[in-house]
Amino acid sequence: MTVSREFAHFLAASRGAGMAPELLHEAKRSLVNVVGTALGGSADEASGIARRTLAPFSAPPEATLIGRRERMSCLDAAFLNALAGNVFDFDDTHPGTIIHPSAPVGPPLFALAERRPMSGRALLEAFVHGVEVECRLGNAVSPQHYKKGWHITASCGVFGAAMAAGHAIGLDETRLLWALGNASAQASGLVETLGTMAKSTGVGQSARGGLLAAFLAENGMAGPERPIEGPRGFLMVLGDGASPDGLTERLGESWELLRNTYKPYPCGVVLNPVVDAVLALRAQAAVPAERIAAIRVYGHPLLDERADRPHVTTGREAQVSAQHAVAVAWLDGAAGIAQFSDARVAAADVLALRARVAVEREGGHSVDGCRVEIRLADGAVLDHVVIDARGSTGRPLSDGEISEKFRSLAAHGCPGFDPEPLLAGLWRLDEAADAGAVIRLAAVG
Amino acid sequence: MTVSREFAHFLAASRGAGMAPELLHEAKRSLVNVVGTALGGSADEASGIARRTLAPFSAPPEATLIGRRERMSCLDAAFLNALAGNVFDFDDTHPGTIIHPSAPVGPPLFALAERRPMSGRALLEAFVHGVEVECRLGNAVSPQHYKKGWHITASCGVFGAAMAAGHAIGLDETRLLWALGNASAQASGLVETLGTMAKSTGVGQSARGGLLAAFLAENGMAGPERPIEGPRGFLMVLGDGASPDGLTERLGESWELLRNTYKPYPCGVVLNPVVDAVLALRAQAAVPAERIAAIRVYGHPLLDERADRPHVTTGREAQVSAQHAVAVAWLDGAAGIAQFSDARVAAADVLALRARVAVEREGGHSVDGCRVEIRLADGAVLDHVVIDARGSTGRPLSDGEISEKFRSLAAHGCPGFDPEPLLAGLWRLDEAADAGAVIRLAAVG
Repeated sequence: MTVSREFAHFLAASRGAGMAPELLHEAKRSLVNVVGTALGGSADEASGIARRTLAPFSAPPEATLIGRRERMSCLDAAFLNALAGNVFDFDDTHPGTIIHPSAPVGPPLFALAERRPMSGRALLEAFVHGVEVECRLGNAVSPQHYKKGWHITASCGVFGAAMAAGHAIGLDETRLLWALGNASAQASGLVETLGTMAKSTGVGQSARGGLLAAFLAENGMAGPERPIEGPRGFLMVLGDGASPDGLTERLGESWELLRNTYKPYPCGVVLNPVVDAVLALRAQAAVPAERIAAIRVYGHPLLDERADRPHVTTGREAQVSAQHAVAVAWLDGAAGIAQFSDARVAAADVLALRARVAVEREGGHSVDGCRVEIRLADGAVLDHVVIDARGSTGRPLSDGEISEKFRSLAAHGCPGFDPEPLLAGLWRLDEAADAGAVIRLAAVG
Repeated sequence: MTVSREFAHFLAASRGAGMAPELLHEAKRSLVNVVGTALGGSADEASGIARRTLAPFSAPPEATLIGRRERMSCLDAAFLNALAGNVFDFDDTHPGTIIHPSAPVGPPLFALAERRPMSGRALLEAFVHGVEVECRLGNAVSPQHYKKGWHITASCGVFGAAMAAGHAIGLDETRLLWALGNASAQASGLVETLGTMAKSTGVGQSARGGLLAAFLAENGMAGPERPIEGPRGFLMVLGDGASPDGLTERLGESWELLRNTYKPYPCGVVLNPVVDAVLALRAQAAVPAERIAAIRVYGHPLLDERADRPHVTTGREAQVSAQHAVAVAWLDGAAGIAQFSDARVAAADVLALRARVAVEREGGHSVDGCRVEIRLADGAVLDHVVIDARGSTGRPLSDGEISEKFRSLAAHGCPGFDPEPLLAGLWRLDEAADAGAVIRLAAVG
C-alpha cells in the first residue's frame, strides 16, 4: 500500500473506532484557542478586506463568520475564519514544524457542520485526524521546507483541511486518496508574504482549498495514486525529495495533536520566554523606564536570527521584534494584542525604550528559555532566567488560561459580545448533538 | 526598482499606450483557440464534476460557463472555464516553457468582463500583459521548474491571471504589486496530478486564485515588496533559486505571446510531427492495418522520454502515447478528441496496431520533427520525414485552421450549438464595445 493510500485507509478505517479522552480534550483546547483567535482576528483589517472581497460572491448564507453578524457559504467561511484565526499568529503551534495546525483545519469543519449537520464528537474526531496528516506531512519536510520559504501552515494545512473534511463527510478510502490529490494540486504559501496581509490569502486558501478538495473527491474528481510520495508529488516537489520513510509509522498510536502548544502572547514563539522574563522582572521592581540604561536579552540562536529587529514600524513586524516585545511588556505590564498595534509600535515611550534593548546569543538556552538583564542608570542590575516559557511543551497553558485568553481576544475583536455561551459550548463540544449550533454561538450582533 | 515592482509599473504605465496590430491579432488567435477548447472540454467528466461541486456555492449568476446554459459567479466561471479550456491539453503552448498560457488568463478576463463591462480591446490588452508576466516567469524558472514537478501552467498561470485582471480593473502600480503578492501565496500545481482529473483542480484554481488576488489587492490586501525575487519568494522557492536577471528585459519590446503556438491534435506536442507523418503516409498508401508488420517512430530524445507508452488504458494516458497516436491516426485517418477517448483506447483494432509500434531516438530531429517508417508484411517499406510539425513555430496554424479546430471542438462538446456567431464575435473582439456580450454567445441552450 502506498503512503498516500495508507493515510486514506487509516482515516476511512478510523470512523467509529473510538478515541482516547485526552485526544478529545486536546482537540477542544485547540478549538477553543483558534475560535478565540478568530474572534480577535475578525476585527483585523485583513479580515475586513477579505470579507468585503468575497461577500458579493458568497452563497448560500449557511455558515457563521466567527465574530461577525453576516453569514457566508461554507467555502468562504472556511477561508475567512481560518484567516481570522491565524492573522495575528496568536493561534496554536506544533513545535516540531512551527505549523499553526488548527486554523486551516478547524474552521472548515465548523463551516461544514452548518451545511451537513454532525455531532461535536464527529467534528472533534475529524479534526484530530486532519491535524494528524497535516503535522505528519510537516514532520516529513521539516526543517528544510520552512527554511526554504514555504509557509508550512498553508502548504501542509490544505491537506489537513481536506482530510478533516473528508473524514467528516464519510469519504471512503479511494475518495480520501482523491481528496489528497486535489489538495496536492493546491498546496502553496510563501514565507515571503509573512508580515503582510498576503500571508492570510495563503492561509485562507489552504482551508477553503482543502474543503473544496473533499467536495470534489466526493463527486468523483479522481487524483493520482501517490500525491504525497510520487516522483512529482508533494514530498519531492515541495519537500525537495524528503523521504516518506516513517510518515505513517505508528498511525493511530502516536498523535501529533498531543504535541500542540498554545501561545500566551500574540508574537513569535521565540519571544514567549522574553516576555515572561520581562514581566517577572517588572513584578519584582516596577522601575520607571527613564531609569533604565539598557536591557539585554540572551538566548538561543533562533532568538536573534528571527527576532533581533530594533527598527519596526508596523504591528505585524513588531510581532517578531524582541526589542518591541521587551519595551511594551515593561511599559504596559502586558503583551496582548493592544501591545502589537501599529499605534503602540509608533508610540514615543515605546520607541525610546526599544532603542535601549539588545539581543545576544548565549549558550545553555533552549528556544523555550532565555535570560534578561536590565541595567539601571544608577548601575544596579536586575536579572531573570526563564527555562520553560509559558505555553511551551514544558509548561503548557492550563484550560483556565486558554479560557482567559479566549475572553480577552473576544473583548478585543468583539467588544460587547458575551463570549461565555460559546466558550462553554466549545468546552462541551464532545457532548453536542449539533456542532453547527455551537459555532452559531460565535455570531455577533 | 525591484523586479516585482517593474512588472507592476510596466502594466500600470501600459494602459492607453496602444498596442501593435500583430499582438492584438495573436491575442485573438489565442482566445479563439482557448474558447474552442473550452467548448470541447465543457462536456468532459472533470468539467461536470467541478461544476456540480461549485454550483451550490456560486453567486451571483453573472458569468457565462462556456458551452453551458447555467451561469455562475465570475470567480467560479474563471475556475470552470479555465478547467474546460485545458482539460484535454488541447489548448495553446508557449514552446519555451510548455505553459498553456491562455487557459488561466483568458477565462478570468471574460468572466470579469461580465461583472465589470470592458471593451474587447481592453480585454485583449489585459490578456497580452497577463500572458507576458506569466510566460516571463515561466522562462525564468525553466526548465528545472517543470522537470522537478511543477505544473507550470498552474504555478505561473496564477500570476498571469492576477496581472490580466489587475490590468483590466485599472489597479495602480502598488496594487498590481499587491496582486502579485496575493498570487504568490497561491502559486501551486503538481505534475504528479497530470493524467488525472486533479490536474484540472490546479488549473482552475490558478485562474480563480489570480482573479481573487486582483480583487483582494483592489480592496487593499497588501503584499510584500518582492513576491517574485525576494529571498523567500517565487523564484527562490518554486524556482529553486532561479535568477531574476533578464526577467524584465525589453519589457514592452519583446512579447511572449508572439511565440504562442496552437495544437492541431489533442495530444502531447511531441506527438504532433508523428501524427503529421502517419497522416501523410496514409494519404500516400491507405494499406489495411492487417498488412502492416511494424511501425517505427524515430525522433528527438524528448519524444521517447515523454511518449514511449505502449500500454495505455485511458484517453488521458493515450494523449501522451506515441503508440496510440500512430495507431489511431492510421486507422481513423484523424487525430481528434474522438481518437483519444477511453473507448477508442480500448478498441480491438487500436490495441492490435498499437502493439506493432515502437519508438526510437535518432539524431538530427528537433522536437518539431520526426521520421516514421512502416514495414509491410510483404517487405515493402514506407517512410516519411517531418521537419516542422503542423502547429509548430515553423509552421503555425492559420487563422482558418484555428477556426476549423474551433468548429470541431464545438461540435464535440456542444452538439447542436451554432458556433458561428461566437466565432465571428471573437475574431472581431478588438472592435467590440462590450466583451461580455461576446462571451455570452458561448452560452448554449
